[in-house]
Amino acid sequence: MQTPVPDYLHEVLDTLREDTSGETAQYIPELANADPAPFALSVTTATGSTYCAGDTDTPFSIQSISKPFAYAAAIIDRGLDRVLESIGVEPSGEAFNELSLEDGTNRPKNPMINAGAIAAHSLLVGQDATGEARVQRVLDMFSSLAGRELQIDEDVYRSELITADHNFSMAHMLRNYGILADDAHEVVSGYTKQCSILVTVNDLSMMAATLANGGVQPVTHEKIIDENTARQVMSVMAVAGMYDGAGDWLTRVGIPAKSGVSGGLVGVLPDQVGIAAFSPRLDSHGNSQRSRRAFERLSTDMDMHLFAPSHGRLDVVGVNLEGNREIFYLQGNVRFTAAAELLDLLSESDFDGAVHLDISRVHSFTNVARRMVLEALRRLRNEGRRIFLHDPLQSLANPDLGDGTFPETP
Amino acid sequence: MQTPVPDYLHEVLDTLREDTSGETAQYIPELANADPAPFALSVTTATGSTYCAGDTDTPFSIQSISKPFAYAAAIIDRGLDRVLESIGVEPSGEAFNELSLEDGTNRPKNPMINAGAIAAHSLLVGQDATGEARVQRVLDMFSSLAGRELQIDEDVYRSELITADHNFSMAHMLRNYGILADDAHEVVSGYTKQCSILVTVNDLSMMAATLANGGVQPVTHEKIIDENTARQVMSVMAVAGMYDGAGDWLTRVGIPAKSGVSGGLVGVLPDQVGIAAFSPRLDSHGNSQRSRRAFERLSTDMDMHLFAPSHGRLDVVGVNLEGNREIFYLQGNVRFTAAAELLDLLSESDFDGAVHLDISRVHSFTNVARRMVLEALRRLRNEGRRIFLHDPLQSLANPDLGDGTFPETP
Amino acid sequence: MQTPVPDYLHEVLDTLREDTSGETAQYIPELANADPAPFALSVTTATGSTYCAGDTDTPFSIQSISKPFAYAAAIIDRGLDRVLESIGVEPSGEAFNELSLEDGTNRPKNPMINAGAIAAHSLLVGQDATGEARVQRVLDMFSSLAGRELQIDEDVYRSELITADHNFSMAHMLRNYGILADDAHEVVSGYTKQCSILVTVNDLSMMAATLANGGVQPVTHEKIIDENTARQVMSVMAVAGMYDGAGDWLTRVGIPAKSGVSGGLVGVLPDQVGIAAFSPRLDSHGNSQRSRRAFERLSTDMDMHLFAPSHGRLDVVGVNLEGNREIFYLQGNVRFTAAAELLDLLSESDFDGAVHLDISRVHSFTNVARRMVLEALRRLRNEGRRIFLHDPLQSLANPDLGDGTFPETP
Amino acid sequence: MQTPVPDYLHEVLDTLREDTSGETAQYIPELANADPAPFALSVTTATGSTYCAGDTDTPFSIQSISKPFAYAAAIIDRGLDRVLESIGVEPSGEAFNELSLEDGTNRPKNPMINAGAIAAHSLLVGQDATGEARVQRVLDMFSSLAGRELQIDEDVYRSELITADHNFSMAHMLRNYGILADDAHEVVSGYTKQCSILVTVNDLSMMAATLANGGVQPVTHEKIIDENTARQVMSVMAVAGMYDGAGDWLTRVGIPAKSGVSGGLVGVLPDQVGIAAFSPRLDSHGNSQRSRRAFERLSTDMDMHLFAPSHGRLDVVGVNLEGNREIFYLQGNVRFTAAAELLDLLSESDFDGAVHLDISRVHSFTNVARRMVLEALRRLRNEGRRIFLHDPLQSLANPDLGDGTFPETP
Repeated sequence: MQTPVPDYLHEVLDTLREDTSGETAQYIPELANADPAPFALSVTTATGSTYCAGDTDTPFSIQSISKPFAYAAAIIDRGLDRVLESIGVEPSGEAFNELSLEDGTNRPKNPMINAGAIAAHSLLVGQDATGEARVQRVLDMFSSLAGRELQIDEDVYRSELITADHNFSMAHMLRNYGILADDAHEVVSGYTKQCSILVTVNDLSMMAATLANGGVQPVTHEKIIDENTARQVMSVMAVAGMYDGAGDWLTRVGIPAKSGVSGGLVGVLPDQVGIAAFSPRLDSHGNSQRSRRAFERLSTDMDMHLFAPSHGRLDVVGVNLEGNREIFYLQGNVRFTAAAELLDLLSESDFDGAVHLDISRVHSFTNVARRMVLEALRRLRNEGRRIFLHDPLQSLANPDLGDGTFPETP
Repeated sequence: MQTPVPDYLHEVLDTLREDTSGETAQYIPELANADPAPFALSVTTATGSTYCAGDTDTPFSIQSISKPFAYAAAIIDRGLDRVLESIGVEPSGEAFNELSLEDGTNRPKNPMINAGAIAAHSLLVGQDATGEARVQRVLDMFSSLAGRELQIDEDVYRSELITADHNFSMAHMLRNYGILADDAHEVVSGYTKQCSILVTVNDLSMMAATLANGGVQPVTHEKIIDENTARQVMSVMAVAGMYDGAGDWLTRVGIPAKSGVSGGLVGVLPDQVGIAAFSPRLDSHGNSQRSRRAFERLSTDMDMHLFAPSHGRLDVVGVNLEGNREIFYLQGNVRFTAAAELLDLLSESDFDGAVHLDISRVHSFTNVARRMVLEALRRLRNEGRRIFLHDPLQSLANPDLGDGTFPETP
Repeated sequence: MQTPVPDYLHEVLDTLREDTSGETAQYIPELANADPAPFALSVTTATGSTYCAGDTDTPFSIQSISKPFAYAAAIIDRGLDRVLESIGVEPSGEAFNELSLEDGTNRPKNPMINAGAIAAHSLLVGQDATGEARVQRVLDMFSSLAGRELQIDEDVYRSELITADHNFSMAHMLRNYGILADDAHEVVSGYTKQCSILVTVNDLSMMAATLANGGVQPVTHEKIIDENTARQVMSVMAVAGMYDGAGDWLTRVGIPAKSGVSGGLVGVLPDQVGIAAFSPRLDSHGNSQRSRRAFERLSTDMDMHLFAPSHGRLDVVGVNLEGNREIFYLQGNVRFTAAAELLDLLSESDFDGAVHLDISRVHSFTNVARRMVLEALRRLRNEGRRIFLHDPLQSLANPDLGDGTFPETP
Repeated sequence: MQTPVPDYLHEVLDTLREDTSGETAQYIPELANADPAPFALSVTTATGSTYCAGDTDTPFSIQSISKPFAYAAAIIDRGLDRVLESIGVEPSGEAFNELSLEDGTNRPKNPMINAGAIAAHSLLVGQDATGEARVQRVLDMFSSLAGRELQIDEDVYRSELITADHNFSMAHMLRNYGILADDAHEVVSGYTKQCSILVTVNDLSMMAATLANGGVQPVTHEKIIDENTARQVMSVMAVAGMYDGAGDWLTRVGIPAKSGVSGGLVGVLPDQVGIAAFSPRLDSHGNSQRSRRAFERLSTDMDMHLFAPSHGRLDVVGVNLEGNREIFYLQGNVRFTAAAELLDLLSESDFDGAVHLDISRVHSFTNVARRMVLEALRRLRNEGRRIFLHDPLQSLANPDLGDGTFPETP
């Protein structure tokens, strides 16, 4: 059997291929002359499976899609507090070529606009890093995220640097406000190299899937980004990823996303998927016309929306009386809700024998859920009941009840 | 055993109770003189369990927290397209008393600012609705959401109407731009009544839990809001709920929320919980100081964040060879990812006997997941294999394989 | 002989009459239906001569042209400091229907925009004035300025009040910020009556000539506005009179001006002329199309520009030796420059006889010039010289030399 | 006798010298370390007399005061139309370090802000001018205006270039928008040299007096700037000269002005005076604190205000019957008003003998006044009357009556 997912993706491409409206980015010669025909779509699950269709082997420069990932690198290298000193997290509500500095702080409003991305690039590695080191940092990190060795397109780099007046203007303004400490020319040069890294849609969907997976590359299982940083990056993409109309995009499509002027578009749904599309012609907002429409189709047809209802309960709890044993079950990914329900059941129990808790079908506990369950077991034990825990997968690893004792194994 | 959840909520209140900074809203006499002492916190799960602490019986006027729910009512009554004609969905980035009309369209930027909320109120019921009908509509709907009969505080209403110049100004400006068709005085009067509906934190957390549950009141099981409208409302709360710093709130706290000038604060995490807090003293942004900090604690301590990692897989798929039967398992809430994985396993199978699919532990399928699974079964059957489906809970109700035939029951 | 000035004005009208672009103000029914044909032009000198051409008898509602004169009345009634508390003097740079309130103070940016004009109207007469008293105040003052009894067009008033949502919005916003103390409806009603006062171009050019003449009506010689207030009003017209492009108008045309939506346009050049034009069709900025072009012609053809060169010296000084008398002459309007030159001549004199100062041809001294001349005479007298002053017109009335003595009469 | 004018200026300095609030410009090292003590004041009349007090020999870099004069040079070199393509004339309403580009055109809003001044510098000389030629152009022109050879302070130039990030940012942004065609570094370097030209207060008051005098240097009598350009520059100073609060300055002080970060302040009153002050400590708006206050004193004490009343008629007309001759007199600087009055008197005359016009005391005619008088004489001659003109100073040079004939000499 052929799995029908690629068939669906092909169908999306076929439907949209006839849309040849818009044109390639005109202000960068190397992009203006790009072949406008390629069209590709790729979806990578948080578990590492990639489904794709179209011109998936066509490389293109990553451009602004580099921004969320370089922002993640800056947070890892310098800490979130230091990065927030220099770059805000608010929507800019403006087109991509505005300064968009915050009143008062003069911080760029967010890392998804050029000013913020230039500031983020300058923060890479460390205070005294060389320009080369910063470029190497993003190249290495993006390669890890994509799962293969990426390269810089030197022609694109040189072509963009010639018309980089807007970015030079930004960099000098950031220096003027003390936000940029390094040489303006070197930072813009490095940032332009960052934007010139060549990727394919499969690279991008894998990079995004790593965010969706809490920072763990789903194929290599390398922990590239810590969870809090992944959370930060996805949050910022949600409010500031698309240049215009953050609210329109979030309500209507609901996929935190970032587009690039070469025609790429990347999106992420936490715990679910990374998505990428590529088509060089741009709409009037500077987003890839067909890529944008492909995302709209995925959202509409496949319920890929941050606030889409899941039509069900995400975690499950139950209780059974088997002989004189009262057995409580938990399964799935246990978050606050399931833990709270279990605690309700436990507290309502008027049985006074042993408590059996079976978590053999649990895939994960959130921190709070783990703490809640352990606290309940501790209380029950203090009331004099024996506690049995069936946890063959070690989901509650080291279930210390707070006094150095542990539940019994059934 | 006492379930420890309320203990935790009590602890949050106790920690924050000493924070008496800020003051009650000074510009509305009835609120200025309110007792600043009460403090309450309530969490209602999408499954209908409420955990709460503090002054949960103290009623207060709902104020701006009415906005997301009245917006939902307007969408239900008039359709999303009609509502979008009059009200945008973009963050306003401004304090609560700015006009914040969009350039060009003159639409209020979103329904969470006063101008947008007044426009939303005017759209209630229908084109020729009376002022009374609009007020009755929100009172009835809010009562259904809370699960009890709510009432208007006439003293607050009268007190606010006296100082309603800002809202009168808005209403006249909206009339000036053709966005408001009705009498400015009547609409502001009705909107002020909407803001004067008395609620408790438990009412609010139940109302929010209804949104989290896709519009179904989790206790009465009444379908009050359709899923798409719930999605729209939560999305708008995410980008425009907190007056200042949408990005700061979404990155740091991550709970789509809405605050009210009387000291209430409500938040929602889809599929998980509705949350409400109440404390009358306001910070410099007009949000309840202690309520805001309580939300920050919940986010930090309990991983209640829209982009918090779930530390696990949300849905599970597996395969077993039992004798000469190849059995495929699915469990949990099956979305695209699990369905896609199942399809991968099915397509990789080189077994040529019967296919057994066991979905007895599945709680739900999304639409796309259901279509994917049925399509895969159809393809396998076309390849000549027998198909058995174990679905005691009818999760795949009416599993037509596309030609009027159905899988066999094992 | 026929004086050729009206011929010139007729020629201007004839040249521009064929320009029928634009249309009457559409949002006020009574103005929308006005006859668009009338066209009139009037120039009144600071000495009270009026030259005019076209439909000079056609009355029209004064509309926004009332603003500078009502602002003058408010300053007279309440003092400049009180008025500045409520209304700024900065250009708004925005179209006529924006709020344009200053950040921080929430004052309307200037009295030439609606918000500022409404605030100015509310300040008329005194703190506890009735609405009737305020309307009567402007009607009386405008009548004095025009030199005839003016009346309110009640049809225009009623028509405008129906579509006055924008002004109601303003008034409520000003109340919200504490800038308006009175009932919003009553102030807007009164302001609308102020705008509905009927005038002709000759009325308007006379009103403006009164400003040009330092507040003295040039025909009745009534001192209606004090000099400092006239200066304030003309200054504000220079920076904020034309809705858009204050700088474009001031550089290119150079006539501080104010337009009205009924098609009027009034301008003033200090010490020289008041100018008025009338033609109901409006350009895209809301200014009368033909009136604006007529002003441009006057500026170009007749050097009527605030910064036009005078090609000469404005005041004259000289010295003659007649026998053993050294006679110093001054003539014209003596300001700092001429006074300073006289003092130079006096200080350079090595003659030691009597000083004769002949100011029989002087028309006026500014305050500083008067003080300078008297101080010089005092010093010369202290050096032992006899001082003779020939001042038959009493231009230096009461020329006390600082010690109770006076110059001798020659 | 000592002329009391310098005494007055000394008194102004003495009164304000104790105000040591503010501090020198901190962001430019060379200025930050400047001696804050010097204080000087200079007034030059349009007739070329200079009155001054204080540290009039202390040189300082001209800084932003160079802007109006370089703008004049750009207009002379390229034409007003070309300059308006690149630089607007509207008030910016913003602090000196904002971009302040116009929406739509991206032109700097006016030539008094840095962006506009950089654009103006780039327009100097001609399209293919070298950077050196542009610098030489302003150095030569400023020297002509000051009446002595000026020089560049190379230390200040180098110090400013190091911290010129804001200007580099501007220049790159202007290049980005196609407004700057030249190399960003070279233009900023040249502009910084322009700002580093050393002047004294006497230089500045002479430069401003040249503007006041319609572009003719009042001592050397060189025509450096044409009248229309002088008018343009003074108009722009009126609306955009002071960084904040154009309206506040124009209403309250009324002297079109421009300040510089080194502590200079220059002002101009057309036909009257150029004024300059110098004191290095700056107020919070970046204007010299004591210089600003000195200007306020001059305005208050000496009626130096653009809209100050002249307390009299600027030009005079009269008629006398001497025997059988009707003699008409004109004197002073004849503009529209006096010419119109003369024409009224001539048209009202019912005498039918010869017309004698005595203009021996006229200092100047404006173009329009000259045309009006000649037209009236032509009409009278056509009615059959003999025309005698007494014009010993040739004020009406070449008084052709339109048909090749001339008035008779009495």
